[in-house]
Amino acid sequence: MELDVDLAPLREHLESDRLDGYLIDDDASDAAQRYVSGFTAPDPYQTLVDDDGTHLLVSGLEYGRATADASADSVTRLSTYDYQELVGEHGAYEAKSRALAAFLEDHGVESIAVPQNFPTGTADGLREQGLAVTVESEGIVETIRATKTDWELEQIRSSQRANEAAMARAEELIATADIEDGLLVRDGEPLTSERVTEAIEITLLRHGCALDETIVACGADAADPHDRGSGPLAADELIVIDIFPRDKETGYFADMTRTFARGEPGEEARRRYEVTREAYETALEAVEAGATGAEVHGAACDVIEGAGYDTLRSDPDTETGFIHSTGHGVGLDIHEQPSVSPAGGDLEPGHVISIEPGIYDPAVGGVRIEDLIVVTEDGYENLTNYRVGLEPTAE
Amino acid sequence: MELDVDLAPLREHLESDRLDGYLIDDDASDAAQRYVSGFTAPDPYQTLVDDDGTHLLVSGLEYGRATADASADSVTRLSTYDYQELVGEHGAYEAKSRALAAFLEDHGVESIAVPQNFPTGTADGLREQGLAVTVESEGIVETIRATKTDWELEQIRSSQRANEAAMARAEELIATADIEDGLLVRDGEPLTSERVTEAIEITLLRHGCALDETIVACGADAADPHDRGSGPLAADELIVIDIFPRDKETGYFADMTRTFARGEPGEEARRRYEVTREAYETALEAVEAGATGAEVHGAACDVIEGAGYDTLRSDPDTETGFIHSTGHGVGLDIHEQPSVSPAGGDLEPGHVISIEPGIYDPAVGGVRIEDLIVVTEDGYENLTNYRVGLEPTAE
Repeated sequence: MELDVDLAPLREHLESDRLDGYLIDDDASDAAQRYVSGFTAPDPYQTLVDDDGTHLLVSGLEYGRATADASADSVTRLSTYDYQELVGEHGAYEAKSRALAAFLEDHGVESIAVPQNFPTGTADGLREQGLAVTVESEGIVETIRATKTDWELEQIRSSQRANEAAMARAEELIATADIEDGLLVRDGEPLTSERVTEAIEITLLRHGCALDETIVACGADAADPHDRGSGPLAADELIVIDIFPRDKETGYFADMTRTFARGEPGEEARRRYEVTREAYETALEAVEAGATGAEVHGAACDVIEGAGYDTLRSDPDTETGFIHSTGHGVGLDIHEQPSVSPAGGDLEPGHVISIEPGIYDPAVGGVRIEDLIVVTEDGYENLTNYRVGLEPTAE
Repeated sequence: MELDVDLAPLREHLESDRLDGYLIDDDASDAAQRYVSGFTAPDPYQTLVDDDGTHLLVSGLEYGRATADASADSVTRLSTYDYQELVGEHGAYEAKSRALAAFLEDHGVESIAVPQNFPTGTADGLREQGLAVTVESEGIVETIRATKTDWELEQIRSSQRANEAAMARAEELIATADIEDGLLVRDGEPLTSERVTEAIEITLLRHGCALDETIVACGADAADPHDRGSGPLAADELIVIDIFPRDKETGYFADMTRTFARGEPGEEARRRYEVTREAYETALEAVEAGATGAEVHGAACDVIEGAGYDTLRSDPDTETGFIHSTGHGVGLDIHEQPSVSPAGGDLEPGHVISIEPGIYDPAVGGVRIEDLIVVTEDGYENLTNYRVGLEPTAE
């Protein structure tokens, strides 16, 4: 197992709250499940952390792979508890609670903490079986996951290398497009958001990464930070490209955004680009161990408000200006701890965060500049090696 | 909105159980959330179904898109309930329950049903705020989702067309490879699982589909139905290719598996292929409205056991033979209702299911043949247009 997880803070919590174990019931799309179990499966399985180790309960279909791959001290299969008979007798809903209660009893566990997103069906089912189930509301596993091991940093770096290759391909397509009737054109066809996205995705695939969504948004589309963009890319308009690939083997994400314009986007768009760039640089300078995510976010807001644009701090209801937070943790989830927002707490060495201020308005378009960094004792190391500039260039 | 969801069975349940509403708290990776809200967002949002409609609670970031896109009668943003102030006062965990309780109060809702996978943190938080929260354990929304509308069938057909193109590309690569020292070779390099997977994924991308995992597994790898396969593909061995793409726009999956062999896989492998094919044909013949998933699964087991191989029915602990169920529903989830397994209930017109028996043994390899079909009154319509045959051919 490459990922050596330190669950000591979780065990300390269990001990101080006098709970026998911590239980996850999810498939491997749940980052905490994947992290704690060291295993991936498409259907839900259960991971118990107690004082003598990490224990998996899996279906017969997963048993072979789980015993070989998982970072678990024991693997038990559901059929041990006559699961199919329980389904016949009690239905699938109650059968699951009964099998799980028997598994917990085998481990001497009578009281458990569960993550906030633990299924209510399982929690209430276990309560009916006499177990004490308490929600662990501090997010201890998320906090543990926020600090990356050296191995995890390597995986994130690798995903960001793929990201840089994909961004370079996208930038090249935009830089070398012809301009006809105000539209970008290549090979006689309009260069669309969809064509650029396809080029990005193929580049990522060749680097072992995949992604569910990419943002290649032009003009008013880009004024909504979650709009993926569609249709022809125009000259004289801002084009936001935000790529967040995930390594298909390891599951680790990367994240980067650049904003480009061909032709003349206009004075106001250029000003917004420079203000965003200053907010990005100022936020980066504010990062160090001991600073809070709130302070870093505040530093970005200061710049943007100082230039006369709204932020959610100056107007919580604004739909233009800087309408999201400055950044977020990145790892097995694309959005994870720590937060670089008004609620963001202390940054610690090993935290991997995005720094991504932006300014949006449908009348002008969107600007966003985003790097991925790792917090160090006295500042940060930038995990992103990609030029910042509004004018696209081909290498 | 293209998807016209009929939630009448859910409202009947609420009425009969005297509950005021049904609440989903998840991001759009949850199929029920996507289906009921008609909206997609990467972070959790809340969807309330009550007697006067469907109501969304979203962050400010999603508000514009939600009002434009969602199939909701009302959209409210979190800031309506002073969410940021609540976070400052009570912390993020309790702030969410308080904002959500205020939203429910605005709709006159005091008691709610929630899906089994509803977050325990939210359920217990709402209970602390005085709400009555009951798990809806029958899976009513999953049952509604199992029966596809004509629009949904079109989306699934479209994903299966992409799948057929990708399978054809994979088959062609295998069919036209050279054989050197027992390995498949193309352009002087070994033809690996990874190379075939990349060709599949690029084909899918060009058809607007993506996938997290593909299975291209050869020899002993293919004896584990969830092993994705890796390394060089060998001649004289069974190669299982299982592709389950998802349309990137609509979110609908398709699913298909074929097994190929170049050279001479041997008599036992050929026999297993023929038995699997007979099980697949027999299971298909058993499908019709009114038959149960259990009966269809039983028909496949009869064939495989009759040929002398184990199934989970003949030996629940077996690790060889037919070690999974015959099929599953496919839609916004790759595994959804109905089940074609020992627990499978009545099949109904409009159910979309896979039929995919297989036989596995590390000593021989794996065989699986899978089509995607839609149940009709008197049988089924096959949504898959792809030849079944062990010998790969290039078109």
